[in-house]
Amino acid sequence: MAKLVKNAVGRMVPTEVNGQKVVPFKGLGKHRPTGHKYAPPIFTSIDYPEDGNKVVGSLKEALKKCGLKDGMTISTHHHLRDGDLVSNGIFDIAHELGVKDLVWLPSASFPCHQPVIKHLENGTINRIEGSMNGPLGRFVTEGKMKGTAVLRSHGGRVQAIQDGEVKIDIAVLAAPSSDFFGNANALYGPSACGVLGYASADFLYADRVIIVTDNLVDFPNMPMEIQGIYVDYVVVVDKIGIPEKIVSGTTQITNSPDRLYIAELTTKFLLESGILKDGCYMQAGAGGTSLAIGNYVHQILKEKGWKSKVGFGGSTKYMVQMLEEGTMEHILDAQAFDLEAVESIAKNKNHHQYPVFNAYNYHTKGNLTTMMDIMILGATEVDVNFNANVVSHSDGYLLHGIGGWQNCLHAKNVILPIPLFRDRIPVIRDEVTTLVGPGELIDIIVTERGIAINPLRKDLIKKMKNSKLPIKTIKQLKDEAERICGKPKAIEFEEKVVAIIKWVDGTVIDSVRKIKQ
Amino acid sequence: MAKLVKNAVGRMVPTEVNGQKVVPFKGLGKHRPTGHKYAPPIFTSIDYPEDGNKVVGSLKEALKKCGLKDGMTISTHHHLRDGDLVSNGIFDIAHELGVKDLVWLPSASFPCHQPVIKHLENGTINRIEGSMNGPLGRFVTEGKMKGTAVLRSHGGRVQAIQDGEVKIDIAVLAAPSSDFFGNANALYGPSACGVLGYASADFLYADRVIIVTDNLVDFPNMPMEIQGIYVDYVVVVDKIGIPEKIVSGTTQITNSPDRLYIAELTTKFLLESGILKDGCYMQAGAGGTSLAIGNYVHQILKEKGWKSKVGFGGSTKYMVQMLEEGTMEHILDAQAFDLEAVESIAKNKNHHQYPVFNAYNYHTKGNLTTMMDIMILGATEVDVNFNANVVSHSDGYLLHGIGGWQNCLHAKNVILPIPLFRDRIPVIRDEVTTLVGPGELIDIIVTERGIAINPLRKDLIKKMKNSKLPIKTIKQLKDEAERICGKPKAIEFEEKVVAIIKWVDGTVIDSVRKIKQ
Repeated sequence: MAKLVKNAVGRMVPTEVNGQKVVPFKGLGKHRPTGHKYAPPIFTSIDYPEDGNKVVGSLKEALKKCGLKDGMTISTHHHLRDGDLVSNGIFDIAHELGVKDLVWLPSASFPCHQPVIKHLENGTINRIEGSMNGPLGRFVTEGKMKGTAVLRSHGGRVQAIQDGEVKIDIAVLAAPSSDFFGNANALYGPSACGVLGYASADFLYADRVIIVTDNLVDFPNMPMEIQGIYVDYVVVVDKIGIPEKIVSGTTQITNSPDRLYIAELTTKFLLESGILKDGCYMQAGAGGTSLAIGNYVHQILKEKGWKSKVGFGGSTKYMVQMLEEGTMEHILDAQAFDLEAVESIAKNKNHHQYPVFNAYNYHTKGNLTTMMDIMILGATEVDVNFNANVVSHSDGYLLHGIGGWQNCLHAKNVILPIPLFRDRIPVIRDEVTTLVGPGELIDIIVTERGIAINPLRKDLIKKMKNSKLPIKTIKQLKDEAERICGKPKAIEFEEKVVAIIKWVDGTVIDSVRKIKQ
Repeated sequence: MAKLVKNAVGRMVPTEVNGQKVVPFKGLGKHRPTGHKYAPPIFTSIDYPEDGNKVVGSLKEALKKCGLKDGMTISTHHHLRDGDLVSNGIFDIAHELGVKDLVWLPSASFPCHQPVIKHLENGTINRIEGSMNGPLGRFVTEGKMKGTAVLRSHGGRVQAIQDGEVKIDIAVLAAPSSDFFGNANALYGPSACGVLGYASADFLYADRVIIVTDNLVDFPNMPMEIQGIYVDYVVVVDKIGIPEKIVSGTTQITNSPDRLYIAELTTKFLLESGILKDGCYMQAGAGGTSLAIGNYVHQILKEKGWKSKVGFGGSTKYMVQMLEEGTMEHILDAQAFDLEAVESIAKNKNHHQYPVFNAYNYHTKGNLTTMMDIMILGATEVDVNFNANVVSHSDGYLLHGIGGWQNCLHAKNVILPIPLFRDRIPVIRDEVTTLVGPGELIDIIVTERGIAINPLRKDLIKKMKNSKLPIKTIKQLKDEAERICGKPKAIEFEEKVVAIIKWVDGTVIDSVRKIKQ
């Protein structure tokens, strides 16, 4: 293991990971990229069928034709979420073919991917570069993965692909509909998931692209969210996904009184501070509290005759309701969370496919995130300097992906509605276990026992001076949490770095050590 | 001038042009590209406005901010056709700023671009790489341009851009609608031209992109046919085009009896040979004879209850009529020729934007052109080996662009309905003045005095053996033309190569010499 250095937020990080040099985080906006984007080889149409039919008999055949071999990087998207029936099979085939040391680059992983653990153990997969949830995170934290995990935000993933920090040898892209040429979208079919916004960078930058579909349709399949001119092979299978697990049944407004109170406080704050206004751009997640806030906002907009100009999804039935009832003008959508959202994309003119590549990539000519007025996010921990963690729990285990969280921190007003403690463990603390987002970018913390405004936001502090809302300092909130739960115990780690956390510009903002068991 | 070598079709071509090595044509499907596609520099959102507003005061300001300097390559698209009010201004500004030796890379030029001749004369522009029509072609043929012209097909242009054979420093893209972020399309506004299918490669591969619009609309401007994440600056002007010259008034069916007879023969041939069938993919140009054929085909499809599955545009009101009356299922469209077509794109679900980048680029994973059953094209000359010319007249003057012609030659059945002579000059001859397309790819020549089938198409010859249509050999057609018009006189050229003609794979298929005056 290369030696660790202290980066600009005081975290110890390696300068080399998996044999590649990496750059420690330098501070916000301090790292300037050099060089050119990655460019795939030049292909020629001579090598592709004149009749446009790229269908081959099986995924195994397609992988062999793509030259699958040791050390390659295989990418997948996560639009089928916990119902994904494609990804595990790739590594079963690789194992069968005796291929070793693959890198898996998913845009996210889910509990359904637990079977890949055996391929991490048997040497088929060297490492996962991508957000890991649940069992995979536990496996990594316990130091069991051969390579070092690289965690990136959704935007960081496409930045890394675009910049050539990670080179995709083969992208295996599940598609709810495709024609024989590989033009694909997610609007129709038994596994419809609405959009394929996480697959853009993959098909644009991968050397080889395989479409796996359970719904082969006539040419031309329009809109071609994945463009056939980038596709090598099309594989038709019985089923790419389990519908009831693709669209989450969990996008429901919270009914916890504490969470509803946090949502209420947040909404009141948004309104009093003037952040919530006619024409605002807004984004909220699909968690129960966020949905409650969205719903309160919807009611306010309705009462006042206002509308949100742009909502960015992960879309849900609640956003669709806003669109259809006129409190939201446009939904820009990289991911649909429920069936109502999937149907809305096919039906509503102002519900647009909007790839993460276009919204979150820090190394492009402007990001959607900086244009957002209201950004509602979560966190597992926040420290007294407003630094926050979303990947690990306070027990040191890596259990969540970064998602779009780091990217979204660039919004005009970042609000974290979070409980003061979870399972009697304080959420606000002296120091976060893993620093995923610098405090400078986090503006407001809303808990059930008070609201803290980042001292850097003098404008908001001034505006809220006479508010009757329970505005406190973050230190007060922390003390209150510790009064109730006691001071949290330090976690013991070993030396070994098991994962690094990348910032949106490709630098390393923190690392995760193997947990002492 | 580097020495000339004989290429695979026996034409003398240079091996170096404008200081760059070029590869002589090696025969169909013989040239394999190596290396990687071009990749623009990595940009960072730090350098772009957080509020997403990229509007600057003027094109001059934008060009200066893009670092316009000597020797740069400036690209434009031709969707505003002869009504383009943007392109000339770029070079007026460059001249004013004292910038020299620019390369202009238009996707096509029109008579309205005659003013750039003064900038070719005063040194602002070194050369034009792109199809040239009328006055510019005359200027080049007379040896007056400083650099050597490079003529490419529409597909060859995007191939060259993608492969880095030509590197765009600044793309200046006129857009009938754009938001402040640079998301642009051509559906709406006073200069609506339907699609921007010729601008895809430009915005994807240019280092810098400027949008010039006369119709700044609210964010987000959807669909984003040009994606704002690739755009540096947006310039708002009074008028980007002259509407009546953007949409051509000339897409009318011919009323010449000879041309109508050619169209009738062609249609009969298509039907008898079985090329015209239910579900066929078809493409025809917007010339008077092609439109007449399209109309006959429409009638036949209607009578038989058949439909064409896919029509590729350049779209016209006649194609829209087929779509709306059910004889065509989909229009894939890279360019709209008339107002009815422009309106149809915005209105008809099955009238799709389909960039030339996706249809014609030979160096990609399959081309639409090879999937087309019926391809109706023109030619200025055809020789006895079916080689054809579309760029020069028999007087040696370069007067037309290649357009998509070379790309379209890859269709399953390429039919050239042409008159046997024009102005008493034979169209079918021993040798073409400029060889733009190899005879191997041209299947059928239809003239008012007979139809010739390429001997390579044994299948068609067999099928038509008992036809009552006037089927002749190409030699017979040539002799007939010479009997009427006499043997054409040889043209006298000087040594100097004034233009090269690229093949779809980037190799040089022919060169054009300076005409002796």
